[in-house]
Amino acid sequence: MNAPLPSQLMPKLEPRNAPPELIEALKARFGDRCSVAQAVREQHGRDESPFDVPPPDAVVFAESTEEVAEVVKLANRYAVPVIPFGVGSSLEGHLLAVQGGISIDLSRMNKVLSVNAEDLTVTVQAGVTRTQLNNEIRHTGLFFPIDPGADATIGGMSATRASGTNAVRYGTMRENVLGLTVVTAGGEILRTGTRAKKSSAGYDLTRLFVGSEGTLGVMTEITVRLYPQPEAISAAICSFPTLEGAVRTTIQLIQMGVPIARCELLDTNAVRALNRYDKLTLLEGPMLLMEFHGTPGSVREQAEMVQEIAREHDGQDFEWASTPEERTRLWTARHRALFAALQMKPGCRAVTTDACVPISRLAECLLETAAEADAAGLPYFIVGHVGDGNFHVGYLIDPARPEERELAETLNRQVVSRAIRLEGTCTGEHGIGLHKMDFLLDEAGAGAVALMRSIKQALDPKNIMNPGKIFTWQ
Amino acid sequence: MNAPLPSQLMPKLEPRNAPPELIEALKARFGDRCSVAQAVREQHGRDESPFDVPPPDAVVFAESTEEVAEVVKLANRYAVPVIPFGVGSSLEGHLLAVQGGISIDLSRMNKVLSVNAEDLTVTVQAGVTRTQLNNEIRHTGLFFPIDPGADATIGGMSATRASGTNAVRYGTMRENVLGLTVVTAGGEILRTGTRAKKSSAGYDLTRLFVGSEGTLGVMTEITVRLYPQPEAISAAICSFPTLEGAVRTTIQLIQMGVPIARCELLDTNAVRALNRYDKLTLLEGPMLLMEFHGTPGSVREQAEMVQEIAREHDGQDFEWASTPEERTRLWTARHRALFAALQMKPGCRAVTTDACVPISRLAECLLETAAEADAAGLPYFIVGHVGDGNFHVGYLIDPARPEERELAETLNRQVVSRAIRLEGTCTGEHGIGLHKMDFLLDEAGAGAVALMRSIKQALDPKNIMNPGKIFTWQ
Repeated sequence: MNAPLPSQLMPKLEPRNAPPELIEALKARFGDRCSVAQAVREQHGRDESPFDVPPPDAVVFAESTEEVAEVVKLANRYAVPVIPFGVGSSLEGHLLAVQGGISIDLSRMNKVLSVNAEDLTVTVQAGVTRTQLNNEIRHTGLFFPIDPGADATIGGMSATRASGTNAVRYGTMRENVLGLTVVTAGGEILRTGTRAKKSSAGYDLTRLFVGSEGTLGVMTEITVRLYPQPEAISAAICSFPTLEGAVRTTIQLIQMGVPIARCELLDTNAVRALNRYDKLTLLEGPMLLMEFHGTPGSVREQAEMVQEIAREHDGQDFEWASTPEERTRLWTARHRALFAALQMKPGCRAVTTDACVPISRLAECLLETAAEADAAGLPYFIVGHVGDGNFHVGYLIDPARPEERELAETLNRQVVSRAIRLEGTCTGEHGIGLHKMDFLLDEAGAGAVALMRSIKQALDPKNIMNPGKIFTWQ
Repeated sequence: MNAPLPSQLMPKLEPRNAPPELIEALKARFGDRCSVAQAVREQHGRDESPFDVPPPDAVVFAESTEEVAEVVKLANRYAVPVIPFGVGSSLEGHLLAVQGGISIDLSRMNKVLSVNAEDLTVTVQAGVTRTQLNNEIRHTGLFFPIDPGADATIGGMSATRASGTNAVRYGTMRENVLGLTVVTAGGEILRTGTRAKKSSAGYDLTRLFVGSEGTLGVMTEITVRLYPQPEAISAAICSFPTLEGAVRTTIQLIQMGVPIARCELLDTNAVRALNRYDKLTLLEGPMLLMEFHGTPGSVREQAEMVQEIAREHDGQDFEWASTPEERTRLWTARHRALFAALQMKPGCRAVTTDACVPISRLAECLLETAAEADAAGLPYFIVGHVGDGNFHVGYLIDPARPEERELAETLNRQVVSRAIRLEGTCTGEHGIGLHKMDFLLDEAGAGAVALMRSIKQALDPKNIMNPGKIFTWQ
């Protein structure tokens, strides 16, 4: 346990642990809601990344924006790091307390504060999860489309600029967050944005905080856009003899402007894992999972266009999932792909890539990546929000075998280099965290990263907000 | 000429004019492309706002990003302001050289650099106008939807986070700019974003610069999203007996999720002005101009739904504009509404509001505003991108009569207060400029504005980038 991070990924940072006075002050204020128990700390010092735990010194379970502000003010006084925590589902080491500090657990801030169905907006506390939100608003006839694999919190999803399967039609957290309540590094409470659909009022602070991974402040309340549940929804599965056929079908349907709501790729390995884990009987080959939203007429039109394109690439006839139950089964399975794949190699962890490229480069990027993974010999699977040009390779490694981790990291670096060379990004939706700081430098350049650092230093001069993530302090 | 701004709007700022050495250095480097001619300076010291000209000290006609960087470096050495200039169509005093300085005219940077039709993206120099862009890409079957009234440059539209008639379906510059080349206050050249459709790679610098009104850097190249020209397009006019009927029709169609491409309101005054100016024969009452994009089937479905909603609010039968020529005539007329209205009162200028509210508040906001304008007795007209909850009142004032300007400004303040009270914004698309600095404080609060100021001070420590706009330096 607590084995160090692989050396090339470990930021060389001084410990900045909470002094006893700070812990005492937090306990005096929050009582049982401030925990220093080893198990609680370890749970809050890890995420779904393959990194080992550096735990925070204490965990505070906050119940309001004002409480978050109190914790931050106290931490600020001692210049001790603060790390916001939702459900711990981030993938790039965002939550690791690399210099110690205080974890603020926001999971008790789980109220849907106001549903404005007439305006297609809702304001929630940061600890509300996407599933909870959709359950609570179902009666309004509206839904919130963003769905990363995990049942993440809206706060965590805002922090990593998350997307998921519906982003091809509905956009990501970037497009769907309208406004925020933020606790700054100084412990001040600010509001950004309004409930209006658009605005030209000054700097776009909302979008500066969205994707800032907790490094600029703690988002405690979030106003997001909702969408009417479509009149008609149809989901279809289409199997292809080759990965290339599935990818080229995707490229063509996007270029034609088909307003597809979901367009997900699973490679043969992912399909096989799902068959075993979810006891499905899917044809074990490359596959697109698609969903069409609209009026009955437009759903039919879209599906016919895509079926025609798929046939040109030797795709099979669509298999339909038209009832809500069938569709739920299908998308639940899709969201479990990572967990299903992990069962294929007992005790393994996954090193997951997150490349995103312009759609015209998707075939080149994805097929080269698959060939490289085949040649490397490590078990892997590919899933992708391919309608957005975004895909993930999960390399399954035995955490006890450093050479497997090294190999997976080498492959990851190659995927990232390829994506950047093809005018894409090192992360479509997972964020930078600890894992991709060097990749961000490659992608954005030293000048742009220096500009990000200037913003960080201006807004958080003591570097207390989730330090050591995205870029180095100096 | 050069009458002072109304005192309550005039920032109290020290002159920071360019010293002779700087002008000489610019002339030595740029020759004839550096002008100090009175007429050129005055042209570059005004925009479409009702403010009088404070001209810059010199105008440099830049032809490349590197030249922009050279100008900025020189200005930085002397701590002299730099104001980027496109076509001068901004509306809130963005271009006024309130402390003197150098205007960088980007209109010669008018090349479409690379069309990536397969990815639905294009990269342009900042001086390309929206009409030029659409003309140059027409053969690809794609189009760029954002259309503020004026034929603005893509750089200017990025700087003010512009939108226009298509934003209800396609979003604003916020959603449609993918990446930028930026010259920073230090004269460094940076790139932000990639051509991938989405990314979680670090702070969203692209969206920080979009809407920053030239105060953080000069955007010299812009990559934007394009869209396939719809298979079918139909435009329709629908007249209503009351403004309320038109507004309630809009609210209902948006709440039902109709993917309408354009939904524009003209009040009776605006329709009357267009009839005179464009020699049209529109029925002189409140009117919605609408456009539907999609397959022939979905266009028909959308139009039928909206016609049904309109009938419930006593809307007349749609009049169709189905040929490209009829549609062009209609939308050209719509875009000329401001100029048409100005003809209604010879020699007048318009004080234009730009409120945007959540759609459920639109009826209350717009109808109260119209009643207030009627009671005030100043000639006015209303046009609105009402599908977004955004509308403009133009109050027609005689610039020689200060009491008319005062009255118009009072009405503007009342519109803004109302919009903010109704959870909206003081500017949907025009920006803050000089005119709305106090309104931004009301809307965002002192804390959020202080945070914007911290960012400005970190990125532009000498305050040379379009100073005196959006917020005060201290």
